[in-house]
Amino acid sequence: MLVRKQTARWQAGAADDSGSLSLAELAESFGTPFYLTVSAAIDERIGELREALPAGMRLLYSIKANPLLGIVARLAGQVDGFDVASAAELESALACGVSGGALSMTGPGKRDDDLAAAVACGARVVLESEDEARRLARLAAGATARVLLRVNPPFELAAEARMGGGPRKFGVDSEQAGEVLRAIGRLPLAFEGLHVYPGSNCLDAGAIAAAQRAALALAAELLPFAPAPLRTLNLGGGFGIPCFPGEQPLDLAALGEAMHEVAREAARRLPACELSLELGRYVVGEAGAYVARVLERKASRGRTYLILDGGLHHHWHATGALEGRRHLHFPMWVVGGDDRPLEEVTVCGPLCAPHDTWAENLSLPRAAPGDLVIVYQSGAYGAGASPVGFMQRPEAAQVLA
Amino acid sequence: MLVRKQTARWQAGAADDSGSLSLAELAESFGTPFYLTVSAAIDERIGELREALPAGMRLLYSIKANPLLGIVARLAGQVDGFDVASAAELESALACGVSGGALSMTGPGKRDDDLAAAVACGARVVLESEDEARRLARLAAGATARVLLRVNPPFELAAEARMGGGPRKFGVDSEQAGEVLRAIGRLPLAFEGLHVYPGSNCLDAGAIAAAQRAALALAAELLPFAPAPLRTLNLGGGFGIPCFPGEQPLDLAALGEAMHEVAREAARRLPACELSLELGRYVVGEAGAYVARVLERKASRGRTYLILDGGLHHHWHATGALEGRRHLHFPMWVVGGDDRPLEEVTVCGPLCAPHDTWAENLSLPRAAPGDLVIVYQSGAYGAGASPVGFMQRPEAAQVLA
Repeated sequence: MLVRKQTARWQAGAADDSGSLSLAELAESFGTPFYLTVSAAIDERIGELREALPAGMRLLYSIKANPLLGIVARLAGQVDGFDVASAAELESALACGVSGGALSMTGPGKRDDDLAAAVACGARVVLESEDEARRLARLAAGATARVLLRVNPPFELAAEARMGGGPRKFGVDSEQAGEVLRAIGRLPLAFEGLHVYPGSNCLDAGAIAAAQRAALALAAELLPFAPAPLRTLNLGGGFGIPCFPGEQPLDLAALGEAMHEVAREAARRLPACELSLELGRYVVGEAGAYVARVLERKASRGRTYLILDGGLHHHWHATGALEGRRHLHFPMWVVGGDDRPLEEVTVCGPLCAPHDTWAENLSLPRAAPGDLVIVYQSGAYGAGASPVGFMQRPEAAQVLA
Repeated sequence: MLVRKQTARWQAGAADDSGSLSLAELAESFGTPFYLTVSAAIDERIGELREALPAGMRLLYSIKANPLLGIVARLAGQVDGFDVASAAELESALACGVSGGALSMTGPGKRDDDLAAAVACGARVVLESEDEARRLARLAAGATARVLLRVNPPFELAAEARMGGGPRKFGVDSEQAGEVLRAIGRLPLAFEGLHVYPGSNCLDAGAIAAAQRAALALAAELLPFAPAPLRTLNLGGGFGIPCFPGEQPLDLAALGEAMHEVAREAARRLPACELSLELGRYVVGEAGAYVARVLERKASRGRTYLILDGGLHHHWHATGALEGRRHLHFPMWVVGGDDRPLEEVTVCGPLCAPHDTWAENLSLPRAAPGDLVIVYQSGAYGAGASPVGFMQRPEAAQVLA
């Protein structure tokens, strides 16, 4: 959505902040395919979030969503911290001038070197088990690691990726969390708070708000077991973006109102505890597009195929590789095709693999080899989350405008 | 299957061709996780194929299945040629001493630089459309490119990946193929034959044999339209390996008998035409294993979880990321655990993603952090086909023993 406004201007040849740009010129300069991320769209999204969020709620960016250094650097001045999933992501943040104290490391399978890197720079470690707490205390060897405990709540968030409720590899079950908190209290660790992340990519503001309220109630219940007052409660994220047909954008205004209530309730029940949100996709997803060139146009038994020079190796989530998504598609358009007649096409990637398909029977402006196709909503979980080496085709350039 | 014999010997501390090896020592030397491919198992599989295949049937290796240079080099002396999906794969084969004439390049979205690389070394280009034929003729500019035409047959192979029958991005529909063959005849291209590849990863020998017979009949029907006698007919591949519970190995003996019949029929109907098979997974899949270490053992609401230091970022196909496979699992075992009691565990990767799951409720020897878990049937479509950069964790070493 955000980048669509921008690309519409570019297609019209309008000047923008970064001078006069066109997608055709970018394609000429960088080759195709390429990812295009619009910094101004990231800034705009951060602005929307700051307006909606209660004052004092900390906003963290999950680097895994898009680890491009230019994006991390751009966000360094705009968010309150970063969540990292590995030592290498942590190094990226440090390289962009982020202080270790602004980092948290989360993930159910941290390696010893991940934990050591976190301790070395003073990052918070989000513990996912009691064993991990013991391992960290042993590795920290004298240094006092700052820790949060991740709790697997009794509820789930009905989202694309469910990460709470029922048995999970994530965190410590809420019914065990009291005991684990006491154990943490006996270890040489600096306990700072709790982390509850029940799901990812949800478009239902009411469901996210309900999960946040429930997470807050859970934190209040666990407070008596905590070895120190809660200084921070990470409410997770889960803010989704619409990528597939029929999906509606998250109602950020409604969610903002609900979060204000959560913040007031938190001030009452967890005094001096700051709240954090951990967002990735929502920050960058709509700020990025993927642009590929049509290599072939062909007919096969009643269908028209467009074969692009980019596919699942660059953009796993947008093609048919993910479970249950074979027949869905991201929003896409033929660059400069607004005045052409529409036709129904099946859009494919170039790989010798049938699931390398962007869309089946989609209505698009008539396109020919050489035309550019733009795939929107592509700023998150793109190249960084895709099998870029598959069939050893060229990597996609990553352009930050 | 093939590598299981080998690892059983290693676990027993037996010496093998490469000296005395143990998985624990490999883990110590290379760190975990790592891929282990056993050259002797590849050799053994090639031997089985040569025994089953009719004399004179050419055996090609599809580099996409496992592009490790050591594997390509090992196979260079054992197969009759290589199929490549990109210029980079082609360069790999040349770097291993394979002659350009032994290469074919296949894929529905070849870039101009792919085609140019093929022409430059004398590789055969498997054309997927009439437009591609024209593009190649233009790019070849004086050189006469050697070409096959890929035909989308009227039938499919009921396999994991269906690539023939109905409308397809692959090749030229059989009912259009006559016309396209005539067009190719008018271009400055050296026509050499046909290519029919209806599907991949099939375990039913009868179905593969039927598809081969049908491909041969199709080639004979198209013969009158061909600009030159067929010198080669690529019958595709599709030989699968059992990876999931209940799957039975392909009956290679039965398929071999059927292929002898196909070869006799081909000698009658397509004189002087050699037959080719294009295999990837079947050559290397059972020769490779993936070995990861248990980082965490945890209980959550009645389930026991093992969290490994490797996951979907290294081995996409074996985890729950692929469509419809969430609840299936590759064969796996705890190294050195034969004498331990069995227990039901859910085996996960380390990523902050719920689909990073190896197996749910699988019966395995009781394991503790530090133990190694081996995943068999992992020699094909492993690291090369996985999102190795996701969350920026360390790459898996690739050990060729």
